[in-house]
Amino acid sequence: MAVPKSLFLPENSLGLVTDLYQLTMAAGYFEQRMDDTATFELSIRHLPKNRSYLVTAGLEQVLHYLTHIAFSPEAIQFLQQLPIFNQVSQKFFEYLKNFTFSGNLYAMPEGTLAFANEPILRVTAPLIEAQIAEAYLLSLINFQTSIATKASRVVSAAQGHEVVDFGTRRAHGPQAGILAARSCYIGGCKGTSNVFAAYELDIPAVGTIAHSWVMAFENEQDSFRKFHEIFPDNTTLLIDTYDTLIGARHAATIGKKLKGVRIDSGDLLELSKEVRRILDNEGLQHVKIVASGDLNEDHIDNLLKDGAPIDSFGVGTEMVTSKDAPALGGIYKLVEQEHNGKVIPKMKFSEDKLTYPCKKQVYRTLDKTGNFVNDVIGLEDENLQGKPLLMPVIKNGKTCYNIPTIHEIQITATHNLAHLPERFKRLREAEIYPVTKSQGLEAKRHETENIIKDVNVSKRNVFTNKASAY
Amino acid sequence: MAVPKSLFLPENSLGLVTDLYQLTMAAGYFEQRMDDTATFELSIRHLPKNRSYLVTAGLEQVLHYLTHIAFSPEAIQFLQQLPIFNQVSQKFFEYLKNFTFSGNLYAMPEGTLAFANEPILRVTAPLIEAQIAEAYLLSLINFQTSIATKASRVVSAAQGHEVVDFGTRRAHGPQAGILAARSCYIGGCKGTSNVFAAYELDIPAVGTIAHSWVMAFENEQDSFRKFHEIFPDNTTLLIDTYDTLIGARHAATIGKKLKGVRIDSGDLLELSKEVRRILDNEGLQHVKIVASGDLNEDHIDNLLKDGAPIDSFGVGTEMVTSKDAPALGGIYKLVEQEHNGKVIPKMKFSEDKLTYPCKKQVYRTLDKTGNFVNDVIGLEDENLQGKPLLMPVIKNGKTCYNIPTIHEIQITATHNLAHLPERFKRLREAEIYPVTKSQGLEAKRHETENIIKDVNVSKRNVFTNKASAY
Repeated sequence: MAVPKSLFLPENSLGLVTDLYQLTMAAGYFEQRMDDTATFELSIRHLPKNRSYLVTAGLEQVLHYLTHIAFSPEAIQFLQQLPIFNQVSQKFFEYLKNFTFSGNLYAMPEGTLAFANEPILRVTAPLIEAQIAEAYLLSLINFQTSIATKASRVVSAAQGHEVVDFGTRRAHGPQAGILAARSCYIGGCKGTSNVFAAYELDIPAVGTIAHSWVMAFENEQDSFRKFHEIFPDNTTLLIDTYDTLIGARHAATIGKKLKGVRIDSGDLLELSKEVRRILDNEGLQHVKIVASGDLNEDHIDNLLKDGAPIDSFGVGTEMVTSKDAPALGGIYKLVEQEHNGKVIPKMKFSEDKLTYPCKKQVYRTLDKTGNFVNDVIGLEDENLQGKPLLMPVIKNGKTCYNIPTIHEIQITATHNLAHLPERFKRLREAEIYPVTKSQGLEAKRHETENIIKDVNVSKRNVFTNKASAY
Repeated sequence: MAVPKSLFLPENSLGLVTDLYQLTMAAGYFEQRMDDTATFELSIRHLPKNRSYLVTAGLEQVLHYLTHIAFSPEAIQFLQQLPIFNQVSQKFFEYLKNFTFSGNLYAMPEGTLAFANEPILRVTAPLIEAQIAEAYLLSLINFQTSIATKASRVVSAAQGHEVVDFGTRRAHGPQAGILAARSCYIGGCKGTSNVFAAYELDIPAVGTIAHSWVMAFENEQDSFRKFHEIFPDNTTLLIDTYDTLIGARHAATIGKKLKGVRIDSGDLLELSKEVRRILDNEGLQHVKIVASGDLNEDHIDNLLKDGAPIDSFGVGTEMVTSKDAPALGGIYKLVEQEHNGKVIPKMKFSEDKLTYPCKKQVYRTLDKTGNFVNDVIGLEDENLQGKPLLMPVIKNGKTCYNIPTIHEIQITATHNLAHLPERFKRLREAEIYPVTKSQGLEAKRHETENIIKDVNVSKRNVFTNKASAY
């Protein structure tokens, strides 16, 4: 009988978690003896609808990946028998046996705010090593950044009321739930329901009871009383299993030790008001109301504007899938190559997807109060005014960076968000934060474009004439 | 210096990958000596916009989870020191040491089509075991089903032209990319770019070259020639790095051995027509055109309706995130409990989220040609007409099911989709497939509702009067 596959990540063979074309190109570079040092930059080309900034996240897992990537003997055997590698020499597979990442990584520390086209990571390594990492790095940064950004919007809408992550069950598989819990915390959430994320990352674990607890007893009052017996100091009760207002009264019978009630369905505005009144009338002004159920930044914003007396929001689906913008279009592009000591800038200009050449740095200007003024994307060695955002993280394959705790990252993100002026972070119709490219970078772009066009595209007229003759 | 966290799933402690409240409830059930056998059912309450059916997927990973769930000593230690477990006895933690899943699982085989409210999984186990599994099972089934469904729409739009999964970099983290590759294949894709998915699941791995390959050489022609040297039988070339039409001519110089060209940007309709003309004029009628770049079922449908000569579609972001409907609202609800040999039906009727009680079965009626006619959701023991869709998969904690290969699952899904009449699967405005509830189930629902309301809600009037006096 077949054994069910877990589809967990292969700890001893992370090299396989990549696109096939990374490995065919790797084999190609190897066979062509192209041992140039290459620089790739990861950036987000366009911000999605309703996003005016990005809270970067995912670097810690990038660090783990680049310091652990390898190919197991079984993985190599698998690759060897793929028909596409027929003509590839054994030496390439020998090379994979000892494959490690030996290059350098510059990155924006997690919690940094990034904008469109700004490099978030910059990898400089032997061409093959930098190439193979593309898919894995993108999937980590795209996802975590997307969720940290969404969470920051939800947290901002909650205006200081607590937001917690309840999304594990709706995330894109079990690991996505864990990564989402991490990203939500970076974006400002106070806790997560995901126990493994709490265990591994020291995020506060939160949660109370589900409908099943209430349903498992003969009646609701019994279920509430019995829960309180075991968790006397943490009695937050879900009150909507049968009837929310009756549930509120059943919960109130717990008395002063009751900590909170949760409403998970119905009209949260009206119900929260009625439940508050019921609790207050029983002298339970201290009891918190937790709301959950398909919440997002807009619902929360509306609820609070309408005066809903909700103390805490449990947010799931919409936050952990970034439902209104569930994908971030991160790209990872070759910008420079060193061939026999000579630096060659690289760019592409395919139709609607032009990229800028050269190693870049992002320079952020702050005003005296620390508020963001504008960013300039310039050349790495331009030394422009402003704070450079990309920092050295890995040097020659070794971590050269003090990995911050998740709490420190949350503080960084919160600090940055506090210093982004309101007009650039409104939930709707925010202004576009000013990001320009330096003169030096623009000059390099024109120079590079001319060189490449000269070699590759100058023959266009000839071809076009030929084509029109078809 | 801190070590970077991988956030891989903990193979020896899958029990932690759950919501905290599952574990507080587990402790509560344990302390209350509630060893009832409980039945939970997993279903999707509403189909998302533009979805008229679901291609179920994820069961194999559910099987892995239920046969491997455990708590490591470190995990138990972590739980013990959480303040919320202060009053919980040591016996509960002793119990977790030997925790396994000892229950039964009924499930729709993967590739079965499901509709709103139909149970896809049914778990019968000691209350604690069934409870803890909730979040993990939901995340697996929600995600894989959502992607297999989306993929089936993309594949259907492609009308027999090949669709392959290029989405790893945009999936919600590295594991989501692997799970997505699996689900896309179940939904009818011909291959995946994800090498680990290919390795682990025997899905054809596909892929060619990226822009970086072209950019890494001094000129495009060189880059094409050198790739062809190493991969003479698999030369599919990306032609839009600098100029798509010039790229097509550069590719054509490879001659008869050229296998395909890929266009990744610009107006795919116009470009594919011009590229086809260029290739045909060089006598390269056999060379395939592959299109990629933010494709989805609507784009593909439009391209083909407009006569785009595209042979193969590489689809990424939109498919692996199910971008237009990135979350499936799966729920996992207690439907029945056995207490001292007595079966007690369970349901909730919170505002807009009523659930039906009792162990259920889905009975599907097919016509003589095997086409779907209608489904009835009935009681497990009703033995209604039609094919029962839920099959025994785990019995007393042991797999009792021949796990099909991924290829068999794809065939099942394809077969089912072929037998769902066109009007129920149109890309837009499909009719709602008829699903009804049996008389037996409706009777049980009324009976159960009355019993529960009698105990829990009959006092409403008293309360309501009291409330209005506030």
